[in-house]
Amino acid sequence: MSIFDYFRNNKKDSASVAKERLQIIVAHERNQRNQPDYLPKLQQELLEVIRKYVDVDQDQVEVALDNNGNCSVLELNITLPDR
Amino acid sequence: MSIFDYFRNNKKDSASVAKERLQIIVAHERNQRNQPDYLPKLQQELLEVIRKYVDVDQDQVEVALDNNGNCSVLELNITLPDR
Repeated sequence: MSIFDYFRNNKKDSASVAKERLQIIVAHERNQRNQPDYLPKLQQELLEVIRKYVDVDQDQVEVALDNNGNCSVLELNITLPDR
Repeated sequence: MSIFDYFRNNKKDSASVAKERLQIIVAHERNQRNQPDYLPKLQQELLEVIRKYVDVDQDQVEVALDNNGNCSVLELNITLPDR
């Protein structure tokens, strides 16, 4: 099992759409549960960095933030616009 | 199968180590194979953003870049220093 399988599984769901896509996942595994979580603040800055390289439509960005015990996961899914 | 399983699988290998860890994965799925890949350039900028929030030791950063057909994946694995 590798990260590639994860993306391959995702791909099946949208096989008919040949859009360009970008996915960013930030996972933070803490050793103490009560530490502040900075991932929500990080999200906008990551998007600004990505924007230097590719054209990102704000309405084509899906954001998910999950907390699972000591692990926080920020997931950004971006569909890039057609040129 | 979700991204959480991927991190859970990784965790088993280092169950005895209670280090704080951060993992960043950027996956770019292109619709044309011959486009330039900007992920290597992105890597340093992403680390600079992360450094605003957490203390990152340069020698504790592992970087992997994989190209698999139309999909490029940049993976940054960071072990955060003890406080």
